[in-house]
Amino acid sequence: MELNSRIIFYVLGMLLLFNGGFMVLASIVSGIYQDGATLDISMAAIVTLMLGVLIMFYTRDHEKEVKAREGYIIVTGGWLIMSASGVLPYLFTGAIPSITDAFFETISGYTTTGASILKEIEGLPEGILFWRSLTHWIGGMGIIVLAVAILPLLGIGGMQLFAAESPGPSADKLHPRITDTAKRLWYIYVGYTVAETILLKLAGMTFFDAMNHSMATLSTGGFSTKNASIAHWNNQPLIQYIIIVFMFLAGANFVLSYFAFKGKIQKVLRDEEFKFYSILIFVFAIIASIVIYFRAAVPISDYHPMVLGDLESSFRHGLFQVIAVSTTTGFVTADFTSWTPFLTVFFFGLMFLGGSAGSTAGGIKVMRHILIIKNGLLEFKRTLHPNAIIPVRFNNKTVSEHIVYNIIAFFVLYMLLFIVGASVLGFLGLDFTSAVGGAASSLGNVGPALGSLNPLSNFSQLPDLGKWWCGFLMLAGRLELFTVLILFTPAFWKKI
Amino acid sequence: MELNSRIIFYVLGMLLLFNGGFMVLASIVSGIYQDGATLDISMAAIVTLMLGVLIMFYTRDHEKEVKAREGYIIVTGGWLIMSASGVLPYLFTGAIPSITDAFFETISGYTTTGASILKEIEGLPEGILFWRSLTHWIGGMGIIVLAVAILPLLGIGGMQLFAAESPGPSADKLHPRITDTAKRLWYIYVGYTVAETILLKLAGMTFFDAMNHSMATLSTGGFSTKNASIAHWNNQPLIQYIIIVFMFLAGANFVLSYFAFKGKIQKVLRDEEFKFYSILIFVFAIIASIVIYFRAAVPISDYHPMVLGDLESSFRHGLFQVIAVSTTTGFVTADFTSWTPFLTVFFFGLMFLGGSAGSTAGGIKVMRHILIIKNGLLEFKRTLHPNAIIPVRFNNKTVSEHIVYNIIAFFVLYMLLFIVGASVLGFLGLDFTSAVGGAASSLGNVGPALGSLNPLSNFSQLPDLGKWWCGFLMLAGRLELFTVLILFTPAFWKKI
Repeated sequence: MELNSRIIFYVLGMLLLFNGGFMVLASIVSGIYQDGATLDISMAAIVTLMLGVLIMFYTRDHEKEVKAREGYIIVTGGWLIMSASGVLPYLFTGAIPSITDAFFETISGYTTTGASILKEIEGLPEGILFWRSLTHWIGGMGIIVLAVAILPLLGIGGMQLFAAESPGPSADKLHPRITDTAKRLWYIYVGYTVAETILLKLAGMTFFDAMNHSMATLSTGGFSTKNASIAHWNNQPLIQYIIIVFMFLAGANFVLSYFAFKGKIQKVLRDEEFKFYSILIFVFAIIASIVIYFRAAVPISDYHPMVLGDLESSFRHGLFQVIAVSTTTGFVTADFTSWTPFLTVFFFGLMFLGGSAGSTAGGIKVMRHILIIKNGLLEFKRTLHPNAIIPVRFNNKTVSEHIVYNIIAFFVLYMLLFIVGASVLGFLGLDFTSAVGGAASSLGNVGPALGSLNPLSNFSQLPDLGKWWCGFLMLAGRLELFTVLILFTPAFWKKI
Repeated sequence: MELNSRIIFYVLGMLLLFNGGFMVLASIVSGIYQDGATLDISMAAIVTLMLGVLIMFYTRDHEKEVKAREGYIIVTGGWLIMSASGVLPYLFTGAIPSITDAFFETISGYTTTGASILKEIEGLPEGILFWRSLTHWIGGMGIIVLAVAILPLLGIGGMQLFAAESPGPSADKLHPRITDTAKRLWYIYVGYTVAETILLKLAGMTFFDAMNHSMATLSTGGFSTKNASIAHWNNQPLIQYIIIVFMFLAGANFVLSYFAFKGKIQKVLRDEEFKFYSILIFVFAIIASIVIYFRAAVPISDYHPMVLGDLESSFRHGLFQVIAVSTTTGFVTADFTSWTPFLTVFFFGLMFLGGSAGSTAGGIKVMRHILIIKNGLLEFKRTLHPNAIIPVRFNNKTVSEHIVYNIIAFFVLYMLLFIVGASVLGFLGLDFTSAVGGAASSLGNVGPALGSLNPLSNFSQLPDLGKWWCGFLMLAGRLELFTVLILFTPAFWKKI
């Protein structure tokens, strides 16, 4: 079977147009704030738009049908072309002069990771800060399409299971699902972003900061316009509680938000993943808060040192960091690696949790953990009764062995890639804690990591090769591993 | 179904007799060396023997049949009762006065881990040192029975696959297999121990040291009679090369040694796991050697500082440490955590490799890695061709889905237990590197770990709870997880 290459390029060209359109938006913001970067950002927009138009023009005579193989190339290629074109505003304005650094910042954006190489953020032009926020906000939109419409069709990592619960027609063609389910969820995504912006503004942020942090929250990206991230508002608890609520919503299944707005609250409350997600976050937040309250050896933050043993502040920071790490947002109110040794291991473990399926969160995801744990427990029963057939159930339905298999294979691959990822970072000279933390954080699209990559530090000190490697880990983690890694198998490229 | 509890106690009583017999042996060694501990060790032997006889006497009227459920209890209970009675020589002689420390040392022995809480080893009575070596040598014998005769019957972690290749009658009753296959492998185990003792003596060790280190090698335990472990002989390369060869043999499938002695060399060379095991060790040794040669920032050892950039010594230490860690022996010629950051991550990764199935090595084991990797690669093919049935093949035979499932479930459980294990150690106050390394090392029965538990240090500094927790991890890892953890499931104890 020939690969339909023209349709691939056509779609990638469309994505460039899309990206160029957002750059125009950034240049308008730049113009409003008169930050001096307007012309450079406009240039980037024009180059991107022209390139998109050119590619679409030369491939306008394309095949209509997108098969699975084209789908894989479009997904990975799409994320890459967005990141590659996304560097232009950084390079043209000189905000990030190095290509390696600029690409790291964009792929960290489009994968909604939020790891940054920027040391001095507050001095950058507003247009560039807005563009930086846009990259992960666009990435979040892409993830919603991917989760709802593309991965289930490709049969990746058990996402079929989640798709069965989605609203909209259950057609098996790509197109109707994109235009239908994804659009409904996009409305919610945009709606939440607007709502958070308004609330943050009311709570005392400037409109610009409110807008940028809302985009960072909903995409579970975590870029901030402040050097201190959310620690900047450590003496404004209301702002932090608002962000907590929206991080929680962004890490939950958007389909459930849709049902909630339709008044089907029962559907939300009965959802097994949502129950588990809520309980886990609650329990972990309580554990973290207690340890912080009684044991934290250092103050909560360098910016606004807390009074040790302050109950509200311990609870808030515990809850904030648990949600920020497990939803893979990566916002920072304090350096969680400096509290106690236990909390360092604890937050390292949380990097492997991830949010819910159908959210913008990265990581392994709660649904997979539920199925892995259930299947693990049943394995004991199966060992005791070798002849009985004991299937896994999820949301009161039997899950096919094939899907359980899919999910476990995903977990194994994730762990192997984590070990390889850490080894490579170690090879590049990182110490043990930084290498292990950096790999877990990149693969899970969290952002802040451990050791020299701790929440108060950043990724600028990585050697260039390390930046490219972390970028690869982010991309593989974000696209559910198989989508990216399958392109490296000879079988994929074999003509049948 | 009632549990046949009398047969359980009867077998445990037999094990006590067995253990007491070995204590008599230790007291004889003590007598020969006139180390002053003879009477105390004899007392320990008498108590253990009497307890064994008493238990067997009161349960002599037992049922004949051992079913799966009794099997599980006997295995875990057996390892526990050996460790519990094994503390007596330490306590009675006062060599280790604390019960926690003594139990840590024995369970570390019987699980062939080789992690120690002893700081000053060379001053101990010969009888006690011999007893310490015996504990892991006995543990190694137990592991051979377990792997060949018990786990395959219980259907644990894919060990059925390995058993299919074993010599001896393929009966499905427990008894004939123990007395047949296991005995043949025990001959090899004893034979190798004798051979290594002779070679080490010829190479310049004292007879006592040769004997103890041979037992430590063949069991992949790694207790040494020297404070500096094998670094004591850093200026006697021949001794270290001999140990390298026997560590390699101990980490390989004993069944293959059996075939080799029967002249069936073809069977050895065609074995997929053996090929993989040899190649992996070779490749990893080369990588480690190169890095040591060009990059190691610190001398190889505090005891006999090497000349940096010495080719033979770099190769020897690289090879030695790669084999020592991947076969989970844990002998030490140098502190691998002080070479380069990369090598720390590298050896941490090796802790998850493990030796071959049917060896005395712990860890995940090469056979499982092969099947996981093969299945992972095939998963890509399956994703591309959703309707094709693509089975995994091993040693030219199709592996049933059930066994692949078993193995993957094992891997997932191993990783989860590792994360929980590290979290608990972190909670007990260990820093990140020590907690993560300590959990990986204990679970994989390696011995030396990272951070404050590095190869030149030991486990004495752990808080008491940490010692018990590491002991639990060693036991769970050694008994292939399911055997131990199944006892914690309610389903196991439910009457049917």
